[in-house]
Amino acid sequence: MAAKGKPEGAKKLRVTVWSEYRHEKKNAKVAEIYPKGMHEAMATPLRKDPNLEVRTATLDEPEHGLTEKVLAETDVLTWWGHTAHGEVKDEIVARVQKRVLEGMGLVVLHSGHYSKIFKTLMGTTCGLKWREAEDQEIFWITKPGHPITAGLDDRFVLDKEEMYGEHFDIPEPEETIFISWFTGGEVFRSGCTWRRGAGKIFYFRPGHETYPTYHDKNVQRVILNGVHWCAPDAGGKVQRDHFKSILK
Amino acid sequence: MAAKGKPEGAKKLRVTVWSEYRHEKKNAKVAEIYPKGMHEAMATPLRKDPNLEVRTATLDEPEHGLTEKVLAETDVLTWWGHTAHGEVKDEIVARVQKRVLEGMGLVVLHSGHYSKIFKTLMGTTCGLKWREAEDQEIFWITKPGHPITAGLDDRFVLDKEEMYGEHFDIPEPEETIFISWFTGGEVFRSGCTWRRGAGKIFYFRPGHETYPTYHDKNVQRVILNGVHWCAPDAGGKVQRDHFKSILK
Amino acid sequence: MAAKGKPEGAKKLRVTVWSEYRHEKKNAKVAEIYPKGMHEAMATPLRKDPNLEVRTATLDEPEHGLTEKVLAETDVLTWWGHTAHGEVKDEIVARVQKRVLEGMGLVVLHSGHYSKIFKTLMGTTCGLKWREAEDQEIFWITKPGHPITAGLDDRFVLDKEEMYGEHFDIPEPEETIFISWFTGGEVFRSGCTWRRGAGKIFYFRPGHETYPTYHDKNVQRVILNGVHWCAPDAGGKVQRDHFKSILK
Amino acid sequence: MAAKGKPEGAKKLRVTVWSEYRHEKKNAKVAEIYPKGMHEAMATPLRKDPNLEVRTATLDEPEHGLTEKVLAETDVLTWWGHTAHGEVKDEIVARVQKRVLEGMGLVVLHSGHYSKIFKTLMGTTCGLKWREAEDQEIFWITKPGHPITAGLDDRFVLDKEEMYGEHFDIPEPEETIFISWFTGGEVFRSGCTWRRGAGKIFYFRPGHETYPTYHDKNVQRVILNGVHWCAPDAGGKVQRDHFKSILK
Repeated sequence: MAAKGKPEGAKKLRVTVWSEYRHEKKNAKVAEIYPKGMHEAMATPLRKDPNLEVRTATLDEPEHGLTEKVLAETDVLTWWGHTAHGEVKDEIVARVQKRVLEGMGLVVLHSGHYSKIFKTLMGTTCGLKWREAEDQEIFWITKPGHPITAGLDDRFVLDKEEMYGEHFDIPEPEETIFISWFTGGEVFRSGCTWRRGAGKIFYFRPGHETYPTYHDKNVQRVILNGVHWCAPDAGGKVQRDHFKSILK
Repeated sequence: MAAKGKPEGAKKLRVTVWSEYRHEKKNAKVAEIYPKGMHEAMATPLRKDPNLEVRTATLDEPEHGLTEKVLAETDVLTWWGHTAHGEVKDEIVARVQKRVLEGMGLVVLHSGHYSKIFKTLMGTTCGLKWREAEDQEIFWITKPGHPITAGLDDRFVLDKEEMYGEHFDIPEPEETIFISWFTGGEVFRSGCTWRRGAGKIFYFRPGHETYPTYHDKNVQRVILNGVHWCAPDAGGKVQRDHFKSILK
Repeated sequence: MAAKGKPEGAKKLRVTVWSEYRHEKKNAKVAEIYPKGMHEAMATPLRKDPNLEVRTATLDEPEHGLTEKVLAETDVLTWWGHTAHGEVKDEIVARVQKRVLEGMGLVVLHSGHYSKIFKTLMGTTCGLKWREAEDQEIFWITKPGHPITAGLDDRFVLDKEEMYGEHFDIPEPEETIFISWFTGGEVFRSGCTWRRGAGKIFYFRPGHETYPTYHDKNVQRVILNGVHWCAPDAGGKVQRDHFKSILK
Repeated sequence: MAAKGKPEGAKKLRVTVWSEYRHEKKNAKVAEIYPKGMHEAMATPLRKDPNLEVRTATLDEPEHGLTEKVLAETDVLTWWGHTAHGEVKDEIVARVQKRVLEGMGLVVLHSGHYSKIFKTLMGTTCGLKWREAEDQEIFWITKPGHPITAGLDDRFVLDKEEMYGEHFDIPEPEETIFISWFTGGEVFRSGCTWRRGAGKIFYFRPGHETYPTYHDKNVQRVILNGVHWCAPDAGGKVQRDHFKSILK
């Protein structure tokens, strides 16, 4: 049986870190926090895992960096977008959805909640309350023992973050992994999972561009855990062919 | 508190029965079974319930019969389509989705599994196996006590139906109500429910156009039960405004 | 079809409000807040609903007030316990479980999370964090449009309550209705539902005995909504016989 | 990060195969099919996996072979019982439940559906229909891509088995993996998963003692996959201590 996280025949789990890479070019504060771009900040800690093979892709590359070839060679895709959801081409969204249903994992980060791909897979508005006001955020683990929480204590804290508040308009999560507390009085289901087709999806809330969230060790650990958790399950050849045929 | 099935201020639960109404015009066999159209066969037993106010709408009417006004006055929509999913305009699909998320119930029937509206709300391909070969279908109740099963025995039978077989590519149902057995050796999750936004969705399998399925008393009972189950829950005014604002 | 909340043949929905009735006799502060007992404070607002027929039962009555006859005549049972979970006889717990599986609704309140009946139905420890420190509690609605939230705004507040914090060791809720925020930094899934057999279960967090929580209008509204939501669904006679036979 | 299936510090995944071992001693037909006992037939294919360390335990050993020490050294327990559920001591059931909630995986086989440990973890009767009549059973995969289905086609067949039919009185499964078709007209959710505490549970239907089911390659594959799937997730030390403290 192929080991989890390494599909049959593959040597390593192939991860593509996708990000808009816009704020970093226009906003000095963001550029200072993430001088090489947010995608590089997300990719760097993943590259320390010898079981992963990590590349990045960004909005302004041809086909947003998500060609048929790149997606065919991607086992897990992570997605961060904020200011330019509308610029992502419908054709590329359909291509990503097809790969998720075939089994590619998808980690959706922060304002990616409002991306076309997440809304397409959920079927809902994915709306929520928000406020930028230096709230403290406390992440409580609601699923101890789950692989996405490996290595964590019973909670972890970010000193300053944008607030996201309920009601978060998503289908009932299959697993609620984290719930966040904010100074201003709000709560949020900040770590949730779903399966769609043969693919697994993990939504993880934090990561506003004006905070150094992706330099935080706990956040990095959760993303690493999430990438491993979303890895395609082995499945059989016949089953994969089945998905390919109904997705043709 | 407003009674279930009758939103605050409304006198009756307002149901719109939607159907393609194409096969009946082209196929003599279908026309013989459903001389007034399948939508009329579905609407007739619902009209016997004094708590319901029932209208019909079909594909070839302007805006497919689903104008803003009609949808605003619809508490539960039932959907049957087969041969012309592609002709349903994306604009109307978006309009129906918006109403479901606001709280309108949706009962999806038979080949409606492949309609744009169902695939949009599920986020998956909704693909399945199928065969037209006079299979017998036995519906087993897997959720006794559920209102959708009210008045039924522990199973019911259709002597001849089209077969639908697993794998059915849907998100894990929130409730599995019926599972079907077919003569040829297949099984199918033939009654399933989900919530999306404030709306409830019930998928119910039977109803191939060349069989008199919608004249069957048990099928009629399940559709009646399903319409009542999908009725909008009362909710508060503030909550409804919330959905309207995030859906604007 | 029988109306929801009124099983076939019954004139009204029959509710039994169960409480330990111990703190009120020993603690002057509790007696001052609830001079007729917590059960009476819970039952009084329910009695204003003409669709309900409400009785109470307490720990020190014979058979804890939950004789075979009382339970046979109960459609929904509400449960509050705290100091004396261990005194509830296993025989009575088994009797209540049997009725829930047959279709009786169960509303579990506050420290009832640690009652034998709730732990029996969940299969887990139902453990949690807690602190008595005058925290403010904000209840956020995570399921707008759900009947348990009818009449509420998008949140409601209790000025002082005992804190309950995650991790709450329960099976993944089928529906998460409320999540609470506490001044001290904790969060809690404070409104959750599950089905077991033909019965529906609603857990609702607030109600420490030293606070006037059950005099709060929003809390009263949620309990009223919860009682209606937990009402037995009509079901068919054959289905009810089925449960009686496997439960014999 | 610890590899899945190998908790931190452990060299191999430690599996205990538990079985009643009664039919084999009394029924010549069973003894002929399983000369070394059903537990040995189940354990033998698992022993071929170099990542597993496999032992067996049976009802008539002291403490049913499930001492504190054995359970402390068990990562995944498989359970087959039929004729003697009532002889399993409540004290041992509580011990097994405690270990599951701490994270030990549990694979429940065939008539183990009616074991004390399964009913305790589910909170329901776990009742079902059954018939011994040489039915053919076809297992349809309803979750392609799931690790429990790795290596399988879209279905597999057992020529003769005991029939189990719906309604199966279990809490709504978190994942429905297989649904079975039987010659006589019944269906059954024959592969289901749940989480309880930090532990994962997989129920897998086939295995009546008078058929050579546990010699079937597909059945062996599913049990092997299920054992790996149920393996404790890594989790953090603090989280494990949390479970130990609330379970003390």
